[in-house]
Amino acid sequence: MDLVKNGWFSEISDLWPGQCFSLKVKEILYQDKSDYQDILIFESTNNGTALILDGIIQCTQKDEFSYQEMITFIPLCNHANPERVLIVGGGDGGVAREVQKHPLVKEIIQVEIDEKVVNASKKHLPFMAKGFNSPKVTLNICDGFEYMKNHKNEFDVIITDSSDPIGPAVNLFTESYYKLLKEALRPKGVISCQAGTVWTDLPHVKQTICHCKKYFKSVKYAYSSVPSYTDGQIGYLVATVDDTNDLKKPNFIFTDKQLEELNIKYYSDEIHSAAFVLPNFVKRHLSK
Amino acid sequence: MDLVKNGWFSEISDLWPGQCFSLKVKEILYQDKSDYQDILIFESTNNGTALILDGIIQCTQKDEFSYQEMITFIPLCNHANPERVLIVGGGDGGVAREVQKHPLVKEIIQVEIDEKVVNASKKHLPFMAKGFNSPKVTLNICDGFEYMKNHKNEFDVIITDSSDPIGPAVNLFTESYYKLLKEALRPKGVISCQAGTVWTDLPHVKQTICHCKKYFKSVKYAYSSVPSYTDGQIGYLVATVDDTNDLKKPNFIFTDKQLEELNIKYYSDEIHSAAFVLPNFVKRHLSK
Repeated sequence: MDLVKNGWFSEISDLWPGQCFSLKVKEILYQDKSDYQDILIFESTNNGTALILDGIIQCTQKDEFSYQEMITFIPLCNHANPERVLIVGGGDGGVAREVQKHPLVKEIIQVEIDEKVVNASKKHLPFMAKGFNSPKVTLNICDGFEYMKNHKNEFDVIITDSSDPIGPAVNLFTESYYKLLKEALRPKGVISCQAGTVWTDLPHVKQTICHCKKYFKSVKYAYSSVPSYTDGQIGYLVATVDDTNDLKKPNFIFTDKQLEELNIKYYSDEIHSAAFVLPNFVKRHLSK
Repeated sequence: MDLVKNGWFSEISDLWPGQCFSLKVKEILYQDKSDYQDILIFESTNNGTALILDGIIQCTQKDEFSYQEMITFIPLCNHANPERVLIVGGGDGGVAREVQKHPLVKEIIQVEIDEKVVNASKKHLPFMAKGFNSPKVTLNICDGFEYMKNHKNEFDVIITDSSDPIGPAVNLFTESYYKLLKEALRPKGVISCQAGTVWTDLPHVKQTICHCKKYFKSVKYAYSSVPSYTDGQIGYLVATVDDTNDLKKPNFIFTDKQLEELNIKYYSDEIHSAAFVLPNFVKRHLSK
Protein backbone atom coordinates (compact mmCIF):
# COMPACT_ATOMS: atom_id res chain seq x y z
CA MET A 1 0.00 0.00 0.00
CA ASP A 2 2.70 2.43 -0.96
CA LEU A 3 0.21 4.86 -2.47
CA VAL A 4 1.77 8.06 -1.19
CA LYS A 5 5.15 9.03 -2.59
CA ASN A 6 7.05 12.26 -2.06
CA GLY A 7 4.01 13.73 -0.35
CA TRP A 8 1.56 13.00 -3.20
CA PHE A 9 -1.15 10.36 -3.54
CA SER A 10 -1.40 9.19 -7.16
CA GLU A 11 -4.37 7.30 -8.54
CA ILE A 12 -2.75 4.91 -10.99
CA SER A 13 -5.10 2.17 -12.23
CA ASP A 14 -5.46 -0.23 -15.13
CA LEU A 15 -9.02 1.06 -15.42
CA TRP A 16 -7.64 4.31 -16.93
CA PRO A 17 -4.17 3.57 -18.29
CA GLY A 18 -1.82 6.39 -19.22
CA GLN A 19 -3.48 9.06 -17.10
CA CYS A 20 -3.31 9.81 -13.41
CA PHE A 21 -4.79 12.29 -10.96
CA SER A 22 -2.76 13.18 -7.86
CA LEU A 23 -3.51 14.97 -4.62
CA LYS A 24 -0.92 16.51 -2.33
CA VAL A 25 -1.08 14.91 1.12
CA LYS A 26 -0.95 17.00 4.28
CA GLU A 27 -1.44 14.16 6.76
CA ILE A 28 -2.39 10.50 6.59
CA LEU A 29 -5.29 10.01 9.00
CA TYR A 30 -6.06 6.31 8.62
CA GLN A 31 -4.70 3.32 6.78
CA ASP A 32 -5.96 -0.25 7.14
CA LYS A 33 -6.86 -3.39 5.26
CA SER A 34 -10.37 -4.76 5.77
CA ASP A 35 -11.68 -8.17 4.67
CA TYR A 36 -12.73 -6.47 1.44
CA GLN A 37 -10.31 -3.72 0.52
CA ASP A 38 -7.44 -1.39 1.38
CA ILE A 39 -8.68 1.76 3.09
CA LEU A 40 -6.75 5.04 3.15
CA ILE A 41 -7.95 8.37 4.49
CA PHE A 42 -5.76 11.48 4.32
CA GLU A 43 -6.05 15.18 4.68
CA SER A 44 -5.00 16.80 1.43
CA THR A 45 -3.37 20.23 1.26
CA ASN A 46 -6.13 21.88 -0.81
CA ASN A 47 -9.08 19.51 -1.30
CA GLY A 48 -9.97 18.57 2.27
CA THR A 49 -10.13 14.99 3.54
CA ALA A 50 -10.02 12.20 0.96
CA LEU A 51 -11.20 8.58 1.14
CA ILE A 52 -9.33 6.04 -0.99
CA LEU A 53 -10.41 2.39 -1.43
CA ASP A 54 -8.06 -0.04 -3.17
CA GLY A 55 -6.06 2.93 -4.44
CA ILE A 56 -9.05 4.69 -6.05
CA ILE A 57 -10.45 8.04 -4.89
CA GLN A 58 -13.98 7.65 -3.51
CA CYS A 59 -14.42 11.25 -2.50
CA THR A 60 -12.73 14.45 -1.44
CA GLN A 61 -14.27 17.01 0.85
CA LYS A 62 -14.02 19.68 -1.85
CA ASP A 63 -16.32 18.14 -4.42
CA GLU A 64 -18.08 15.08 -2.93
CA PHE A 65 -21.37 16.98 -2.80
CA SER A 66 -21.72 16.82 -6.57
CA TYR A 67 -21.76 13.03 -6.60
CA GLN A 68 -23.79 12.52 -3.40
CA GLU A 69 -26.47 15.02 -4.36
CA MET A 70 -26.85 13.91 -7.96
CA ILE A 71 -27.00 10.15 -7.35
CA THR A 72 -29.57 10.88 -4.63
CA PHE A 73 -31.85 13.66 -5.83
CA ILE A 74 -32.25 12.58 -9.44
CA PRO A 75 -34.17 9.42 -8.44
CA LEU A 76 -35.73 10.91 -5.29
CA CYS A 77 -37.05 14.05 -6.96
CA ASN A 78 -38.22 12.11 -9.99
CA HIS A 79 -40.29 9.70 -7.85
CA ALA A 80 -43.71 11.06 -6.92
CA ASN A 81 -43.58 9.74 -3.36
CA PRO A 82 -40.22 8.27 -2.29
CA GLU A 83 -41.19 7.17 1.21
CA ARG A 84 -38.95 4.14 1.62
CA VAL A 85 -35.39 4.23 0.31
CA LEU A 86 -32.65 1.58 0.15
CA ILE A 87 -28.99 2.57 -0.11
CA VAL A 88 -26.60 -0.18 -1.25
CA GLY A 89 -22.99 0.64 -0.38
CA GLY A 90 -22.30 4.25 0.54
CA GLY A 91 -20.28 3.34 3.62
CA ASP A 92 -19.01 6.90 4.02
CA GLY A 93 -22.53 8.13 4.83
CA GLY A 94 -22.64 10.82 2.16
CA VAL A 95 -25.67 9.45 0.33
CA ALA A 96 -27.57 8.90 3.60
CA ARG A 97 -26.81 12.54 4.47
CA GLU A 98 -28.52 13.64 1.25
CA VAL A 99 -31.45 11.17 1.26
CA GLN A 100 -32.61 12.27 4.71
CA LYS A 101 -32.91 15.87 3.47
CA HIS A 102 -35.82 14.98 1.17
CA PRO A 103 -39.06 15.91 2.94
CA LEU A 104 -41.08 12.95 1.57
CA VAL A 105 -38.61 10.27 2.70
CA LYS A 106 -39.79 8.44 5.82
CA GLU A 107 -37.43 5.50 6.13
CA ILE A 108 -33.91 4.79 4.89
CA ILE A 109 -32.41 1.30 4.96
CA GLN A 110 -28.71 1.10 4.19
CA VAL A 111 -26.69 -2.05 3.49
CA GLU A 112 -22.92 -1.71 3.48
CA ILE A 113 -20.60 -4.69 3.33
CA ASP A 114 -17.53 -3.15 4.98
CA GLU A 115 -17.91 -2.06 8.59
CA LYS A 116 -14.34 -0.72 8.66
CA VAL A 117 -15.27 1.90 6.05
CA VAL A 118 -18.25 2.98 8.16
CA ASN A 119 -16.22 3.23 11.35
CA ALA A 120 -13.31 5.03 9.72
CA SER A 121 -15.73 7.48 8.09
CA LYS A 122 -17.44 8.17 11.40
CA LYS A 123 -14.08 9.11 12.87
CA HIS A 124 -12.37 10.87 9.97
CA LEU A 125 -15.12 11.95 7.55
CA PRO A 126 -17.80 13.30 9.91
CA PHE A 127 -19.00 15.75 7.25
CA MET A 128 -20.32 12.72 5.37
CA ALA A 129 -20.82 10.14 8.14
CA LYS A 130 -23.25 12.50 9.89
CA GLY A 131 -25.74 10.97 7.44
CA PHE A 132 -25.87 7.93 9.75
CA ASN A 133 -27.12 10.07 12.64
CA SER A 134 -30.50 10.67 11.05
CA PRO A 135 -33.33 8.88 12.93
CA LYS A 136 -34.65 7.87 9.50
CA VAL A 137 -31.59 5.68 8.84
CA THR A 138 -31.17 1.97 9.71
CA LEU A 139 -27.71 0.70 8.80
CA ASN A 140 -27.10 -3.02 8.22
CA ILE A 141 -23.61 -4.39 7.75
CA CYS A 142 -24.16 -7.05 5.10
CA ASP A 143 -23.88 -7.87 1.39
CA GLY A 144 -26.36 -5.78 -0.62
CA PHE A 145 -26.76 -8.58 -3.15
CA GLU A 146 -27.75 -11.05 -0.44
CA TYR A 147 -29.97 -8.52 1.34
CA MET A 148 -32.11 -7.88 -1.69
CA LYS A 149 -32.71 -11.58 -2.25
CA ASN A 150 -34.83 -11.50 0.91
CA HIS A 151 -36.51 -8.12 0.44
CA LYS A 152 -38.97 -8.00 -2.43
CA ASN A 153 -41.39 -5.22 -3.33
CA GLU A 154 -40.27 -3.00 -0.46
CA PHE A 155 -38.64 0.18 -1.76
CA ASP A 156 -39.63 3.27 -3.74
CA VAL A 157 -36.06 4.24 -4.57
CA ILE A 158 -32.84 2.19 -4.47
CA ILE A 159 -29.50 3.98 -4.74
CA THR A 160 -26.40 1.89 -5.45
CA ASP A 161 -23.41 3.91 -4.26
CA SER A 162 -20.68 1.48 -5.20
CA SER A 163 -16.99 1.68 -5.92
CA ASP A 164 -15.76 0.75 -9.40
CA PRO A 165 -16.46 -2.67 -10.95
CA ILE A 166 -13.43 -4.38 -9.42
CA GLY A 167 -13.11 -5.63 -5.84
CA PRO A 168 -16.13 -5.91 -3.53
CA ALA A 169 -18.48 -4.03 -5.90
CA VAL A 170 -18.06 -6.35 -8.89
CA ASN A 171 -21.47 -8.03 -8.38
CA LEU A 172 -23.20 -4.65 -8.48
CA PHE A 173 -22.59 -4.29 -12.21
CA THR A 174 -23.97 -7.66 -13.38
CA GLU A 175 -27.25 -8.38 -15.15
CA SER A 176 -28.56 -10.38 -12.21
CA TYR A 177 -28.11 -7.35 -9.96
CA TYR A 178 -30.67 -5.42 -12.00
CA LYS A 179 -33.10 -8.32 -11.62
CA LEU A 180 -32.71 -8.09 -7.84
CA LEU A 181 -33.15 -4.32 -7.93
CA LYS A 182 -36.36 -4.66 -9.93
CA GLU A 183 -37.78 -7.25 -7.55
CA ALA A 184 -36.90 -5.19 -4.47
CA LEU A 185 -38.75 -2.18 -5.86
CA ARG A 186 -42.37 -1.28 -5.32
CA PRO A 187 -44.44 -0.44 -8.42
CA LYS A 188 -43.30 2.91 -9.88
CA GLY A 189 -39.87 2.40 -8.26
CA VAL A 190 -36.80 4.30 -9.45
CA ILE A 191 -33.14 3.32 -9.15
CA SER A 192 -29.84 5.09 -9.57
CA CYS A 193 -26.39 3.49 -9.70
CA GLN A 194 -22.85 4.80 -10.09
CA ALA A 195 -22.11 4.13 -13.75
CA GLY A 196 -18.60 5.23 -14.74
CA THR A 197 -17.43 7.94 -17.12
CA VAL A 198 -18.24 8.47 -20.78
CA TRP A 199 -14.65 9.32 -21.72
CA THR A 200 -12.91 6.18 -20.46
CA ASP A 201 -15.72 3.68 -19.88
CA LEU A 202 -18.20 4.25 -22.73
CA PRO A 203 -18.41 0.57 -23.79
CA HIS A 204 -18.85 -0.36 -20.13
CA VAL A 205 -21.56 2.29 -19.70
CA LYS A 206 -23.36 0.83 -22.71
CA GLN A 207 -23.06 -2.71 -21.39
CA THR A 208 -24.45 -1.66 -18.01
CA ILE A 209 -27.40 0.05 -19.72
CA CYS A 210 -28.03 -3.13 -21.74
CA HIS A 211 -28.04 -5.25 -18.58
CA CYS A 212 -30.46 -2.85 -16.93
CA LYS A 213 -32.80 -2.68 -19.95
CA LYS A 214 -33.57 -6.36 -19.56
CA TYR A 215 -35.53 -5.58 -16.41
CA PHE A 216 -36.40 -1.88 -16.53
CA LYS A 217 -38.75 -0.05 -18.89
CA SER A 218 -36.89 3.25 -19.08
CA VAL A 219 -33.11 3.46 -18.61
CA LYS A 220 -31.10 6.66 -18.88
CA TYR A 221 -27.59 7.92 -18.16
CA ALA A 222 -27.07 11.26 -16.42
CA TYR A 223 -23.79 12.84 -15.38
CA SER A 224 -22.19 15.52 -13.29
CA SER A 225 -18.83 17.20 -12.92
CA VAL A 226 -16.63 15.79 -10.10
CA PRO A 227 -13.01 16.96 -10.48
CA SER A 228 -11.55 14.27 -8.20
CA TYR A 229 -12.91 11.40 -10.28
CA THR A 230 -11.21 10.12 -13.41
CA ASP A 231 -12.02 12.37 -16.36
CA GLY A 232 -13.52 14.89 -13.93
CA GLN A 233 -16.93 13.40 -14.54
CA ILE A 234 -19.13 10.64 -13.18
CA GLY A 235 -22.30 9.08 -14.52
CA TYR A 236 -25.47 7.76 -12.98
CA LEU A 237 -27.60 5.02 -14.44
CA VAL A 238 -31.19 5.99 -13.66
CA ALA A 239 -34.05 3.63 -14.41
CA THR A 240 -37.68 2.96 -13.65
CA VAL A 241 -40.17 0.12 -14.04
CA ASP A 242 -42.89 2.67 -14.87
CA ASP A 243 -42.68 3.67 -18.52
CA THR A 244 -45.11 6.56 -18.07
CA ASN A 245 -42.51 8.30 -15.89
CA ASP A 246 -40.14 10.73 -17.64
CA LEU A 247 -36.90 10.35 -15.66
CA LYS A 248 -35.59 13.72 -16.87
CA LYS A 249 -38.43 15.50 -15.13
CA PRO A 250 -38.38 16.15 -11.39
CA ASN A 251 -41.76 15.68 -9.73
CA PHE A 252 -40.57 17.32 -6.53
CA ILE A 253 -38.89 20.71 -6.93
CA PHE A 254 -36.82 22.23 -4.12
CA THR A 255 -37.28 25.98 -3.77
CA ASP A 256 -34.15 28.16 -3.73
CA LYS A 257 -34.77 28.68 -0.02
CA GLN A 258 -34.89 24.92 0.61
CA LEU A 259 -31.73 24.35 -1.43
CA GLU A 260 -29.93 26.90 0.71
CA GLU A 261 -31.30 25.71 4.05
CA LEU A 262 -30.59 22.07 3.24
CA ASN A 263 -27.08 22.96 2.01
CA ILE A 264 -27.71 21.47 -1.43
CA LYS A 265 -24.88 22.83 -3.53
CA TYR A 266 -24.95 21.09 -6.92
CA TYR A 267 -28.46 19.76 -7.56
CA SER A 268 -31.42 21.83 -8.72
CA ASP A 269 -34.44 21.01 -10.88
CA GLU A 270 -32.68 22.63 -13.86
CA ILE A 271 -29.51 20.57 -13.32
CA HIS A 272 -31.70 17.46 -12.97
CA SER A 273 -32.92 17.79 -16.56
CA ALA A 274 -29.64 19.10 -18.00
CA ALA A 275 -27.71 16.12 -16.55
CA PHE A 276 -29.44 13.85 -19.08
CA VAL A 277 -28.35 15.91 -22.10
CA LEU A 278 -25.37 13.95 -23.38
CA PRO A 279 -22.50 15.02 -25.63
CA ASN A 280 -23.18 14.02 -29.22
CA PHE A 281 -20.59 11.19 -29.30
CA VAL A 282 -22.14 9.64 -26.20
CA LYS A 283 -25.71 9.98 -27.47
CA ARG A 284 -24.69 8.41 -30.76
CA HIS A 285 -22.80 5.52 -29.13
CA LEU A 286 -25.57 4.71 -26.68
CA SER A 287 -28.31 4.79 -29.33
CA LYS A 288 -26.54 2.33 -31.65
CA MET B 1 11.88 22.50 -18.79
CA ASP B 2 12.13 19.23 -16.94
CA LEU B 3 8.41 18.53 -17.30
CA VAL B 4 8.67 14.83 -18.05
CA LYS B 5 9.89 12.58 -15.24
CA ASN B 6 9.99 8.78 -15.19
CA GLY B 7 7.98 8.72 -18.41
CA TRP B 8 5.14 10.91 -17.13
CA PHE B 9 4.26 14.54 -17.86
CA SER B 10 2.79 16.18 -14.75
CA GLU B 11 0.85 19.44 -14.84
CA ILE B 12 1.89 21.09 -11.60
CA SER B 13 0.87 24.75 -11.35
CA ASP B 14 0.28 27.42 -8.74
CA LEU B 15 -3.04 28.03 -10.51
CA TRP B 16 -4.38 24.77 -8.98
CA PRO B 17 -2.22 23.97 -5.94
CA GLY B 18 -2.35 20.52 -4.35
CA GLN B 19 -3.72 18.69 -7.37
CA CYS B 20 -2.07 17.44 -10.52
CA PHE B 21 -3.05 15.64 -13.70
CA SER B 22 -0.45 13.47 -15.41
CA LEU B 23 -0.17 11.81 -18.80
CA LYS B 24 2.14 8.91 -19.64
CA VAL B 25 4.54 9.90 -22.42
CA LYS B 26 5.26 7.58 -25.33
CA GLU B 27 7.53 9.94 -27.28
CA ILE B 28 8.50 13.59 -27.10
CA LEU B 29 7.88 15.05 -30.57
CA TYR B 30 8.88 18.69 -30.11
CA GLN B 31 10.34 20.89 -27.43
CA ASP B 32 11.30 24.55 -27.89
CA LYS B 33 11.17 27.96 -26.31
CA SER B 34 9.58 30.76 -28.34
CA ASP B 35 9.68 34.49 -27.59
CA TYR B 36 6.47 33.97 -25.63
CA GLN B 37 6.43 30.55 -24.00
CA ASP B 38 7.83 27.05 -23.60
CA ILE B 39 6.33 24.65 -26.13
CA LEU B 40 6.19 20.88 -25.64
CA ILE B 41 4.44 18.36 -27.87
CA PHE B 42 4.44 14.66 -27.05
CA GLU B 43 2.67 11.52 -28.02
CA SER B 44 1.00 10.07 -24.95
CA THR B 45 0.45 6.36 -24.46
CA ASN B 46 -3.35 6.51 -24.37
CA ASN B 47 -4.62 10.04 -25.10
CA GLY B 48 -2.98 10.76 -28.46
CA THR B 49 -0.75 13.77 -29.11
CA ALA B 50 -0.67 16.51 -26.47
CA LEU B 51 0.28 20.20 -26.72
CA ILE B 52 1.74 21.81 -23.59
CA LEU B 53 2.47 25.56 -23.25
CA ASP B 54 4.42 26.81 -20.23
CA GLY B 55 3.81 23.45 -18.56
CA ILE B 56 0.01 23.57 -18.98
CA ILE B 57 -1.99 21.15 -21.15
CA GLN B 58 -3.65 22.98 -24.06
CA CYS B 59 -5.15 19.92 -25.66
CA THR B 60 -4.89 16.18 -26.14
CA GLN B 61 -6.05 14.38 -29.24
CA LYS B 62 -8.50 12.32 -27.20
CA ASP B 63 -10.74 15.12 -25.98
CA GLU B 64 -9.78 18.39 -27.72
CA PHE B 65 -12.99 18.30 -29.78
CA SER B 66 -15.09 19.12 -26.72
CA TYR B 67 -13.33 22.45 -26.19
CA GLN B 68 -12.91 23.39 -29.86
CA GLU B 69 -16.51 22.64 -30.78
CA MET B 70 -18.09 24.27 -27.76
CA ILE B 71 -16.10 27.54 -27.83
CA THR B 72 -16.92 27.73 -31.56
CA PHE B 73 -20.48 26.57 -32.10
CA ILE B 74 -22.09 28.19 -29.08
CA PRO B 75 -21.46 31.72 -30.47
CA LEU B 76 -21.67 30.73 -34.16
CA CYS B 77 -24.97 28.85 -33.85
CA ASN B 78 -26.44 31.52 -31.61
CA HIS B 79 -25.67 34.30 -34.13
CA ALA B 80 -28.30 34.59 -36.86
CA ASN B 81 -25.76 35.19 -39.63
CA PRO B 82 -22.12 34.72 -38.60
CA GLU B 83 -20.49 35.63 -41.91
CA ARG B 84 -17.26 37.14 -40.67
CA VAL B 85 -15.41 35.58 -37.76
CA LEU B 86 -12.27 36.59 -35.84
CA ILE B 87 -10.25 34.03 -33.90
CA VAL B 88 -7.82 35.46 -31.33
CA GLY B 89 -5.19 32.90 -30.34
CA GLY B 90 -5.93 29.31 -31.29
CA GLY B 91 -2.46 28.71 -32.72
CA ASP B 92 -3.04 24.95 -32.92
CA GLY B 93 -5.71 25.46 -35.58
CA GLY B 94 -8.45 23.52 -33.76
CA VAL B 95 -10.90 26.42 -33.55
CA ALA B 96 -10.32 27.34 -37.22
CA ARG B 97 -11.07 23.70 -38.10
CA GLU B 98 -14.45 24.01 -36.39
CA VAL B 99 -15.39 27.53 -37.54
CA GLN B 100 -14.97 26.65 -41.23
CA LYS B 101 -17.53 23.84 -40.82
CA HIS B 102 -20.35 26.31 -40.24
CA PRO B 103 -22.23 26.80 -43.54
CA LEU B 104 -22.97 30.51 -42.99
CA VAL B 105 -19.35 31.52 -42.29
CA LYS B 106 -17.74 33.24 -45.29
CA GLU B 107 -14.51 34.62 -43.92
CA ILE B 108 -12.29 33.73 -40.97
CA ILE B 109 -9.52 36.04 -39.76
CA GLN B 110 -7.18 34.58 -37.18
CA VAL B 111 -4.59 36.45 -35.13
CA GLU B 112 -2.04 34.38 -33.23
CA ILE B 113 0.96 35.86 -31.49
CA ASP B 114 3.28 32.85 -31.53
CA GLU B 115 4.32 31.57 -34.97
CA LYS B 116 6.28 28.72 -33.41
CA VAL B 117 3.04 27.24 -32.03
CA VAL B 118 1.48 27.42 -35.48
CA ASN B 119 4.45 25.79 -37.20
CA ALA B 120 4.85 23.07 -34.57
CA SER B 121 1.12 22.33 -34.77
CA LYS B 122 1.25 22.06 -38.56
CA LYS B 123 3.97 19.46 -38.21
CA HIS B 124 2.88 17.53 -35.12
CA LEU B 125 -0.84 18.24 -34.63
CA PRO B 126 -2.19 17.98 -38.20
CA PHE B 127 -5.58 16.82 -36.92
CA MET B 128 -6.04 20.34 -35.56
CA ALA B 129 -3.78 22.43 -37.80
CA LYS B 130 -5.72 21.29 -40.86
CA GLY B 131 -8.05 24.12 -39.86
CA PHE B 132 -5.52 26.51 -41.43
CA ASN B 133 -5.96 24.83 -44.82
CA SER B 134 -9.48 26.14 -45.29
CA PRO B 135 -9.70 28.79 -48.07
CA LYS B 136 -11.92 30.77 -45.70
CA VAL B 137 -9.03 31.31 -43.25
CA THR B 138 -6.53 34.20 -43.24
CA LEU B 139 -3.90 33.79 -40.53
CA ASN B 140 -2.00 36.81 -39.21
CA ILE B 141 0.91 36.41 -36.83
CA CYS B 142 0.41 39.35 -34.48
CA ASP B 143 -0.89 40.46 -31.09
CA GLY B 144 -4.68 40.11 -30.95
CA PHE B 145 -4.94 43.09 -28.61
CA GLU B 146 -3.09 45.33 -31.07
CA TYR B 147 -4.96 43.93 -34.07
CA MET B 148 -8.35 44.83 -32.69
CA LYS B 149 -7.30 48.40 -31.98
CA ASN B 150 -7.26 48.88 -35.75
CA HIS B 151 -10.30 46.81 -36.69
CA LYS B 152 -13.57 48.27 -35.52
CA ASN B 153 -17.10 47.15 -36.41
CA GLU B 154 -15.88 44.28 -38.58
CA PHE B 155 -16.87 40.92 -37.09
CA ASP B 156 -20.05 38.99 -36.36
CA VAL B 157 -18.38 36.57 -33.97
CA ILE B 158 -15.05 36.80 -32.12
CA ILE B 159 -13.64 33.69 -30.43
CA THR B 160 -10.79 34.14 -27.95
CA ASP B 161 -9.01 30.80 -27.72
CA SER B 162 -6.37 31.75 -25.18
CA SER B 163 -4.20 29.93 -22.71
CA ASP B 164 -4.66 30.63 -19.00
CA PRO B 165 -4.33 34.16 -17.54
CA ILE B 166 -0.58 33.99 -17.07
CA GLY B 167 2.07 34.39 -19.76
CA PRO B 168 1.23 35.78 -23.21
CA ALA B 169 -2.56 35.60 -22.69
CA VAL B 170 -2.68 37.81 -19.59
CA ASN B 171 -4.06 40.82 -21.53
CA LEU B 172 -6.96 38.74 -22.81
CA PHE B 173 -8.60 38.68 -19.39
CA THR B 174 -8.59 42.41 -18.64
CA GLU B 175 -11.50 44.84 -18.70
CA SER B 176 -9.99 46.78 -21.60
CA TYR B 177 -9.94 43.62 -23.70
CA TYR B 178 -13.74 43.45 -23.57
CA LYS B 179 -13.91 47.07 -24.71
CA LEU B 180 -11.81 46.15 -27.74
CA LEU B 181 -13.96 43.10 -28.43
CA LYS B 182 -17.11 45.19 -28.33
CA GLU B 183 -15.69 47.77 -30.71
CA ALA B 184 -14.45 45.15 -33.16
CA LEU B 185 -17.93 43.59 -33.35
CA ARG B 186 -20.68 44.48 -35.79
CA PRO B 187 -24.13 45.15 -34.33
CA LYS B 188 -25.65 41.90 -32.98
CA GLY B 189 -22.14 40.50 -32.54
CA VAL B 190 -21.43 37.57 -30.23
CA ILE B 191 -18.19 36.62 -28.48
CA SER B 192 -16.87 33.57 -26.69
CA CYS B 193 -13.71 33.36 -24.58
CA GLN B 194 -12.00 30.60 -22.63
CA ALA B 195 -13.02 31.33 -19.06
CA GLY B 196 -11.54 28.85 -16.57
CA THR B 197 -13.20 26.29 -14.33
CA VAL B 198 -15.89 26.72 -11.72
CA TRP B 199 -14.21 24.43 -9.20
CA THR B 200 -10.83 26.16 -8.94
CA ASP B 201 -11.37 29.57 -10.54
CA LEU B 202 -14.85 30.64 -9.45
CA PRO B 203 -13.82 34.10 -8.14
CA HIS B 204 -11.82 34.60 -11.35
CA VAL B 205 -14.81 33.53 -13.46
CA LYS B 206 -16.94 36.06 -11.64
CA GLN B 207 -14.36 38.83 -12.09
CA THR B 208 -14.14 38.09 -15.82
CA ILE B 209 -17.93 38.23 -16.13
CA CYS B 210 -17.92 41.58 -14.28
CA HIS B 211 -15.30 42.98 -16.66
CA CYS B 212 -17.32 41.82 -19.63
CA LYS B 213 -20.61 43.19 -18.31
CA LYS B 214 -19.23 46.73 -18.49
CA TYR B 215 -19.38 46.51 -22.28
CA PHE B 216 -21.83 43.73 -23.15
CA LYS B 217 -25.59 43.58 -22.61
CA SER B 218 -25.92 39.86 -21.97
CA VAL B 219 -23.07 37.83 -20.46
CA LYS B 220 -23.29 34.12 -19.65
CA TYR B 221 -21.00 31.27 -18.64
CA ALA B 222 -21.32 27.88 -20.32
CA TYR B 223 -19.18 24.80 -19.76
CA SER B 224 -18.24 21.41 -21.09
CA SER B 225 -16.44 18.31 -19.91
CA VAL B 226 -12.76 18.11 -20.97
CA PRO B 227 -10.91 15.42 -18.97
CA SER B 228 -7.43 16.74 -19.78
CA TYR B 229 -8.10 20.16 -18.31
CA THR B 230 -7.87 20.92 -14.60
CA ASP B 231 -11.03 19.76 -12.84
CA GLY B 232 -12.05 17.94 -16.03
CA GLN B 233 -14.11 20.94 -17.03
CA ILE B 234 -13.67 24.19 -18.92
CA GLY B 235 -15.89 27.24 -19.19
CA TYR B 236 -16.76 29.67 -21.93
CA LEU B 237 -17.74 33.26 -21.39
CA VAL B 238 -20.37 34.00 -24.03
CA ALA B 239 -21.68 37.53 -24.52
CA THR B 240 -23.57 39.74 -26.93
CA VAL B 241 -24.21 43.42 -27.49
CA ASP B 242 -27.79 42.60 -28.53
CA ASP B 243 -29.99 42.18 -25.47
CA THR B 244 -32.87 40.74 -27.50
CA ASN B 245 -30.72 37.70 -28.25
CA ASP B 246 -31.06 34.70 -25.91
CA LEU B 247 -27.55 33.22 -25.87
CA LYS B 248 -28.82 29.86 -24.66
CA LYS B 249 -30.83 29.38 -27.83
CA PRO B 250 -29.18 28.29 -31.07
CA ASN B 251 -30.53 30.06 -34.15
CA PHE B 252 -28.81 27.64 -36.48
CA ILE B 253 -29.42 23.94 -35.76
CA PHE B 254 -27.22 21.24 -37.28
CA THR B 255 -29.16 18.14 -38.34
CA ASP B 256 -27.92 14.76 -37.08
CA LYS B 257 -26.71 14.06 -40.63
CA GLN B 258 -24.71 17.31 -40.68
CA LEU B 259 -23.20 16.59 -37.26
CA GLU B 260 -22.03 13.22 -38.51
CA GLU B 261 -20.74 14.43 -41.88
CA LEU B 262 -18.92 17.37 -40.31
CA ASN B 263 -17.45 15.11 -37.60
CA ILE B 264 -18.96 17.19 -34.80
CA LYS B 265 -18.65 14.96 -31.77
CA TYR B 266 -19.60 16.98 -28.69
CA TYR B 267 -21.82 19.90 -29.75
CA SER B 268 -25.51 19.67 -30.57
CA ASP B 269 -28.38 22.12 -30.17
CA GLU B 270 -29.42 20.29 -26.98
CA ILE B 271 -25.90 20.50 -25.53
CA HIS B 272 -25.81 24.21 -26.49
CA SER B 273 -28.68 25.00 -24.12
CA ALA B 274 -27.69 22.51 -21.41
CA ALA B 275 -24.16 23.98 -21.23
CA PHE B 276 -25.61 27.13 -19.64
CA VAL B 277 -27.34 25.25 -16.83
CA LEU B 278 -24.93 25.71 -13.94
CA PRO B 279 -24.54 23.74 -10.71
CA ASN B 280 -26.37 25.43 -7.89
CA PHE B 281 -23.23 26.69 -6.09
CA VAL B 282 -22.02 28.33 -9.30
CA LYS B 283 -25.38 29.90 -10.11
CA ARG B 284 -25.59 31.24 -6.55
CA HIS B 285 -22.03 32.64 -6.56
CA LEU B 286 -22.37 34.32 -9.95
CA SER B 287 -25.73 35.89 -9.12
CA LYS B 288 -24.49 37.54 -5.89
